[in-house]
Amino acid sequence: MKHYTFGVDYYPEHWPRERWATDAKMMREMGIEVVRMGEFSWAMFEPGEGRFDFSVLDEAIGLLAAQGIDVILGTPTAAPPAWIIEKNPEIQPTDWRGQQRFFGGRHHDCQSNPVYREHIRRYVTAFAAHFADNPAVVGWQVDNELGNSHGDLCYCESCEKRFRVWLKEKYGTIGELNRAWGTAFWSQDYPDFEHIRSPKITAAWGQNPSHDLDWRRFSSDLVCEFHQLQADILRAAAPGKFITHNLMGFSSKPSYYALGEQLDFASHDQYPGGHFHARHDEYRADWHAAELDFIRAVKQKPFWIMEQQSGITGWEVLGRTPRPGQLGLWAMQCVAHGADTIVFFRWRSCPMGTEQYWHGLLPHSGQPGRYFREVEAFMKQYAPLLREMQGALPQAEVAILRSYEQEYAFQIQPHHPQHRYTQHLMTYYKALHRANVPVDFVGEHHDWSGYKVLIAPLQFLMTPSLSEKLHAFVENGGQLVLTWRTGVKDESNLCHTDMPVPCLVDDLCGLQLAEYDCLRDTDGAVLWEGERLACSQWCDVVEVTTARPVAVYGHEFYAGTPAITCNEFGAGKCWYVGTTLSDALADRMVAALLASADIAPLMDTPHGVEAVRRVKGGKTWLFLLNHNACPETVALPAGFTPWDGAPWAGQLEAHGTRVFVSVSE
Amino acid sequence: MKHYTFGVDYYPEHWPRERWATDAKMMREMGIEVVRMGEFSWAMFEPGEGRFDFSVLDEAIGLLAAQGIDVILGTPTAAPPAWIIEKNPEIQPTDWRGQQRFFGGRHHDCQSNPVYREHIRRYVTAFAAHFADNPAVVGWQVDNELGNSHGDLCYCESCEKRFRVWLKEKYGTIGELNRAWGTAFWSQDYPDFEHIRSPKITAAWGQNPSHDLDWRRFSSDLVCEFHQLQADILRAAAPGKFITHNLMGFSSKPSYYALGEQLDFASHDQYPGGHFHARHDEYRADWHAAELDFIRAVKQKPFWIMEQQSGITGWEVLGRTPRPGQLGLWAMQCVAHGADTIVFFRWRSCPMGTEQYWHGLLPHSGQPGRYFREVEAFMKQYAPLLREMQGALPQAEVAILRSYEQEYAFQIQPHHPQHRYTQHLMTYYKALHRANVPVDFVGEHHDWSGYKVLIAPLQFLMTPSLSEKLHAFVENGGQLVLTWRTGVKDESNLCHTDMPVPCLVDDLCGLQLAEYDCLRDTDGAVLWEGERLACSQWCDVVEVTTARPVAVYGHEFYAGTPAITCNEFGAGKCWYVGTTLSDALADRMVAALLASADIAPLMDTPHGVEAVRRVKGGKTWLFLLNHNACPETVALPAGFTPWDGAPWAGQLEAHGTRVFVSVSE
Amino acid sequence: MKHYTFGVDYYPEHWPRERWATDAKMMREMGIEVVRMGEFSWAMFEPGEGRFDFSVLDEAIGLLAAQGIDVILGTPTAAPPAWIIEKNPEIQPTDWRGQQRFFGGRHHDCQSNPVYREHIRRYVTAFAAHFADNPAVVGWQVDNELGNSHGDLCYCESCEKRFRVWLKEKYGTIGELNRAWGTAFWSQDYPDFEHIRSPKITAAWGQNPSHDLDWRRFSSDLVCEFHQLQADILRAAAPGKFITHNLMGFSSKPSYYALGEQLDFASHDQYPGGHFHARHDEYRADWHAAELDFIRAVKQKPFWIMEQQSGITGWEVLGRTPRPGQLGLWAMQCVAHGADTIVFFRWRSCPMGTEQYWHGLLPHSGQPGRYFREVEAFMKQYAPLLREMQGALPQAEVAILRSYEQEYAFQIQPHHPQHRYTQHLMTYYKALHRANVPVDFVGEHHDWSGYKVLIAPLQFLMTPSLSEKLHAFVENGGQLVLTWRTGVKDESNLCHTDMPVPCLVDDLCGLQLAEYDCLRDTDGAVLWEGERLACSQWCDVVEVTTARPVAVYGHEFYAGTPAITCNEFGAGKCWYVGTTLSDALADRMVAALLASADIAPLMDTPHGVEAVRRVKGGKTWLFLLNHNACPETVALPAGFTPWDGAPWAGQLEAHGTRVFVSVSE
Repeated sequence: MKHYTFGVDYYPEHWPRERWATDAKMMREMGIEVVRMGEFSWAMFEPGEGRFDFSVLDEAIGLLAAQGIDVILGTPTAAPPAWIIEKNPEIQPTDWRGQQRFFGGRHHDCQSNPVYREHIRRYVTAFAAHFADNPAVVGWQVDNELGNSHGDLCYCESCEKRFRVWLKEKYGTIGELNRAWGTAFWSQDYPDFEHIRSPKITAAWGQNPSHDLDWRRFSSDLVCEFHQLQADILRAAAPGKFITHNLMGFSSKPSYYALGEQLDFASHDQYPGGHFHARHDEYRADWHAAELDFIRAVKQKPFWIMEQQSGITGWEVLGRTPRPGQLGLWAMQCVAHGADTIVFFRWRSCPMGTEQYWHGLLPHSGQPGRYFREVEAFMKQYAPLLREMQGALPQAEVAILRSYEQEYAFQIQPHHPQHRYTQHLMTYYKALHRANVPVDFVGEHHDWSGYKVLIAPLQFLMTPSLSEKLHAFVENGGQLVLTWRTGVKDESNLCHTDMPVPCLVDDLCGLQLAEYDCLRDTDGAVLWEGERLACSQWCDVVEVTTARPVAVYGHEFYAGTPAITCNEFGAGKCWYVGTTLSDALADRMVAALLASADIAPLMDTPHGVEAVRRVKGGKTWLFLLNHNACPETVALPAGFTPWDGAPWAGQLEAHGTRVFVSVSE
Repeated sequence: MKHYTFGVDYYPEHWPRERWATDAKMMREMGIEVVRMGEFSWAMFEPGEGRFDFSVLDEAIGLLAAQGIDVILGTPTAAPPAWIIEKNPEIQPTDWRGQQRFFGGRHHDCQSNPVYREHIRRYVTAFAAHFADNPAVVGWQVDNELGNSHGDLCYCESCEKRFRVWLKEKYGTIGELNRAWGTAFWSQDYPDFEHIRSPKITAAWGQNPSHDLDWRRFSSDLVCEFHQLQADILRAAAPGKFITHNLMGFSSKPSYYALGEQLDFASHDQYPGGHFHARHDEYRADWHAAELDFIRAVKQKPFWIMEQQSGITGWEVLGRTPRPGQLGLWAMQCVAHGADTIVFFRWRSCPMGTEQYWHGLLPHSGQPGRYFREVEAFMKQYAPLLREMQGALPQAEVAILRSYEQEYAFQIQPHHPQHRYTQHLMTYYKALHRANVPVDFVGEHHDWSGYKVLIAPLQFLMTPSLSEKLHAFVENGGQLVLTWRTGVKDESNLCHTDMPVPCLVDDLCGLQLAEYDCLRDTDGAVLWEGERLACSQWCDVVEVTTARPVAVYGHEFYAGTPAITCNEFGAGKCWYVGTTLSDALADRMVAALLASADIAPLMDTPHGVEAVRRVKGGKTWLFLLNHNACPETVALPAGFTPWDGAPWAGQLEAHGTRVFVSVSE
Repeated sequence: MKHYTFGVDYYPEHWPRERWATDAKMMREMGIEVVRMGEFSWAMFEPGEGRFDFSVLDEAIGLLAAQGIDVILGTPTAAPPAWIIEKNPEIQPTDWRGQQRFFGGRHHDCQSNPVYREHIRRYVTAFAAHFADNPAVVGWQVDNELGNSHGDLCYCESCEKRFRVWLKEKYGTIGELNRAWGTAFWSQDYPDFEHIRSPKITAAWGQNPSHDLDWRRFSSDLVCEFHQLQADILRAAAPGKFITHNLMGFSSKPSYYALGEQLDFASHDQYPGGHFHARHDEYRADWHAAELDFIRAVKQKPFWIMEQQSGITGWEVLGRTPRPGQLGLWAMQCVAHGADTIVFFRWRSCPMGTEQYWHGLLPHSGQPGRYFREVEAFMKQYAPLLREMQGALPQAEVAILRSYEQEYAFQIQPHHPQHRYTQHLMTYYKALHRANVPVDFVGEHHDWSGYKVLIAPLQFLMTPSLSEKLHAFVENGGQLVLTWRTGVKDESNLCHTDMPVPCLVDDLCGLQLAEYDCLRDTDGAVLWEGERLACSQWCDVVEVTTARPVAVYGHEFYAGTPAITCNEFGAGKCWYVGTTLSDALADRMVAALLASADIAPLMDTPHGVEAVRRVKGGKTWLFLLNHNACPETVALPAGFTPWDGAPWAGQLEAHGTRVFVSVSE
């Protein structure tokens, strides 16, 4: 597959034809090599049923191709046109309250609806056929940010019908479903599959957590099925073109691991500037880093950024404007964490519709300003870097286990009002990030054997096979971190019974739980070699069998009992953390882990300066990223020289970046 | 009726049959004498229409009976099975917005629905007949916590139809209804009863408060009617068994006074540990005490706890774990306030469904832990106490009037954004509780003549008969406390006109209102013999006729005018409180009342240590309850000796309790 | 037209007939000259279709006329009776979620519904005919507070149908609509008008802002059309009577400029006491003043207060009681800002319905109290003043441009989470108010040439004609203030393209925007001649062409660039303000403006003391209004003497007012 360095997302259909040639020329001059187009304009390409008109795309692709720019086409199924909705209003999705939602934004569609699928089949077939032989069209994107804005949609009868088929395939008999869902509670036994519905709002609150967990699994599978329908048509009708998708970091509606199996490579949309409800005075570079590391895990290889922030963004309200340097800094952070290609969103700010203020490289006026100039300079300087580094990876020794199923289970039962699965994982990630330790994310299905340390928080749903895999990892010398709410449930979200918690891994942890406390509005404390450090949310009260207490609680009636333990098991160690760590406590925990596993951080940096590496062949690229609004002084590790050959005086500008290289003998 | 000391709520249907005998044996050994079962498993007992299968209950009852344990059976009408809902989806209730709610939790039923009532009639008839001759089945519970989770349900057409019948019975003619509802305002006259609907969400907010009040009265009556339907069947088919219901303290949907008329005795569910949205760092022992005192008022005799907290509780989020001693402390508080029997909820934590984390005495593992051991020790120690004290009452000299109708009226019009009826009553209750003064709650219908003091806040709806009863109480020497918003409305929630406020009791109070002020975001002050004490929410500006000012306002243009007055009337006194009291002001008010009525508190205790008594024959049991997390020193009143004969060193442990006795000559 | 000084709103239908003569006599003795009646009692006047009974009104009007009191009648279309709703439930409105709202409050009607319009036509025709020849009936009010409580209603199919007609008239062809709405974005092209719907809740949030803007324009027009329907019938059937409407200050659903064209004069409802969700410890006299100044702009002449607060008010919760003096102070503030007639709401507190606690001059008891006495004294003292001053105006030299269309556009896209159009205008108004500078509000359609200064914030939608009018104003010597978000959009809410922002006025402003920043949670700073003053929400980063920097930013990477500029243009000046001003910064800005335009404030007063004038012929009335709860000392400007001849010692009482006069030579 051909490698591209930089691209833009482009909507010629929003602009007069006379402008297109100017755009294409400006793009080429700027360094653009690839353009994504077409993913939101069904109504233009099929203005009436079966009447296709791709002339806009044909012409625009032609102008771009004339400048040597290749094209990725999106299928426009995230926004079925008004004529489809008027003909088949049942396509519109139904929310959790059983109320239909309406046309006027996007994603106004039910993904299971067979009528809608027929419309898709007709469109995508014609679309694929039309561009199959166009050599400038090099790949496809199906729909847009699948699952992103479908959070609580759809609960309609079509989805219920599809859900029943899914359940029948999974359980075979209704008796087995009743067992797995524990329908004996509150009289929920189903005489047959036809009685099962989507988990809509109940009369007096309360839901069956097993029903809800399967609904979320089904909803993930449904998104993947929806993607598969289109991917199959595209692959059959237009062989030789790649398929990718613009994923959304930690978004959880569909499993990206599952969706990723259909992709040639993963892509991601990155908007670090914040907008909507975000607070804007918070440090979030660690979250952005983590989402990039996670996207790399989807295919366990480098990825694309399909939408990279290009300016100030927002819908009804806006975020902050990127400060001088930040557009380049944010793009470089993506590169540092594994992006081989950066596609900026979008070429020019759109004059119409909901996203008028989701600014592009060019403003509405069309005259290049600061955003354009900064990005252009960045492209020109770093295109060679992207070319030479293609395929390089960070060579992490620490992995964090991210599981969609565990996340679903905690969405259903957070236990503590402020407890969120991803935030909990980030407690560990942030401490590793502060220490400049490269991290991979992994799934349950991945091979963990290459890692020295596996941090696997919240292994709530514990199956024999997961238990076995965890045991094996430690047995073979790995260091494993498990936490509170591990080994509580079986795969159906039923509580394990007649076994000590953490069920199926109590021997691995070397302890059993006596009970637990939910801290609610109060804080707790942990004593670690005399130092008092804060914890919150939850405290397991444990009785150690073979484990060694590492730190103890400093509060409540269980003061002095172990909060963190370590158990030697086989050739490795299993740590158990019974509470939610404060930042200071997480730093202490990570330091202990690194020491125990003999892992060295890349280097020391001031707070807000990130150090990341990519490695290929014998060559290491070291990225220094200053997320602070002031210059920072940094001491470079031995053996590294500036990638660009420019002198290095030991200082990064505000929002500045530098790249260094070293070649191992 | 046979007396029971301790029991548990038990769900054999959630566990394998092989375990049941073990459970029964463990129960007996622990001291369990009675078990409640069956109230949530309709689908199991009637898996298809008319196909009954009570074998699970038969077998479990047999095993329990073999251990000498008796059984209470609940009718499972709080959770109609899926096959009923699929056959008759119209049974599902409709919310205030006119939207249907769905199956999947509990209480997914409309209580007026005639189709649902036919299902109930069929089930309960068979259920009662099947167990009528089983001597181990000693009583019934109808449904579960009636009204608790029906707060804003149901507004469907069936309910509207039943409402119209209720209104026709009440008003006779539509003209009388139009008068009583004041439909002349905003053009709401109804030409006939058929035009009347449930008070669903209106176009531009605003409701007719008279319509709304009758709707709440109707909703209460509907719950009672729903209970009566089943109680009648049970009593007819299975004579000789008692009927009780697990009430929910201050919950207000149905009037517990009215529901209580159908019961042989009242029961109550007590969960002091808090969960859901509660703050967990607040002192709430006074609220728990008050709810117990109120439940005692339902039948004016001792009661059962049908669900006593047994461990950490919660649904999606959990509360705090009970600290060592608290499970016993909480059970003892129930006993102290009049519980003759304590049934713990539940035997073992449930592995399935919404209430997986509503923990029981046994954890999911089935292995006894701290909760079990603490409760077992408590049972063994105090079973003899419960036996000897059965029927004992607190002999209160002070009563607080709690009225469902007044509460409904303030739910409709709180007047001040933070004003809540129960919270207002608690202002007085808490001061009495701090002073260790026994309190009874009473209704309007009760005989008040045995009390020296009647605190009757917020007598908003004032009828001639209520006025007459209040006059008589004072005339005969009682001390009565009335407050702001007394005598404002008639029984239809229309304002009294052409009379001075407080209407119908202005002579009793010895004053008339000039006007009133709602304090909103600001606080006010009251000067009592020079001391400045805070008040809030509301200030009546009064003109005394015969009353004596007791304390005056210290703020606003009405500073210096009376805030609290006292009027000699007949052989008694009527106090009037024109504002909402702060704790300090309530303490002062209560001190004045006690002095005036010559009432002595039981004893002095440190804050957080509660002193309560029960009296029977010439014997008084005195309970000391330490709600604090530290030991407390207490000076015992003369004449009391430790009930258990163990030495008393003047100190209670953290969360500790002691019982003392004295016998009058 | 006959002039009236004082009136009351009166509901004889709420009271027994025997009382009416007493009421009429008390009114006359108090000084009441006019009464408004009948606007909420359709059910009484037409108890069944076509059965009219106006006997209540006939009799009440007769009794009032006998006391020399004239009457205004309201059409009762804000509350269609139950029999209409039961016959035609489709009349009930539909909310933004597509859910119907229900009978039980008021405004439970869809204003476009043709069936409802037939009911109205029948009623109003009969109503008008019945009273056409009654000389005591001098005028009409159509409906009540049109638009006030219809905020988010109605989105029903009838409204959609009417909307399509409106759109067809506006755009002619669907192609032109698609262009104007930018439907190329997110595939929203409409093949024909029949596909267009109301902008209900979408699937995944997001709306088309152009669609939404037209919807708001249509909703405004619909209210006006609804009014016109009735006004036409009334004028035809009963010539010689005036038509007015009780407007609601800054309420924005219908354009009051447009509605005003149908009125003989504007009226307004004034409730300064606050209620519902308002904070009650805030100074709001400036807001009340501004709303009065705005109502004067509707017809650019004096107006009526149709509902003047008479006591404590509220529905379910109440506000503060008016302090001694405040009822007169609030009425006098209305007079000072241009009210020629004050009608107090209401005569007597209503005993029934939602507004039981919206207190009148008389309490429920019917016995005059403080409110009554204060208002009576006020009427008796100031009736002569109202007579002599009729028609006088404030002669303002400063105008603020208030535009409904700009407000709609910012309702759709506030840009900053806390940014509100009216609040932004108030930044300037409040500073002028603190300085005691008379202010007029004006619309885009008004003649601005009489003003020295025009403050025109947020000229977001910029058309060539608006640009031309702004240019002409400055060219001819005016001083114009423009702000951030000026010149961003065209009239369709599409962004201008291929032009520098502020589009179409960049030459007038003498600058172009480089970019902008949304401050979100942080504050900003402006340096004005070295003084550091706070700003917030938004910062335009400008590049001046011909403008002179007046003040610069003191924060972020654009520190030192101009925040406020001034550009000489023709004979005038155009100021540009790139940010939202703090109070201190607004004071500074206003001082600069006044100095530059040579405008003198009326006088200096302590904070909370308002000085206002009205002028007629050569005579000036100066009003001093003390909004503070303490006395204030004020130095009177030269040439003024007390209007009432009473001595002036230089002090105003708490909540006191005084009027002074001066006659120019």
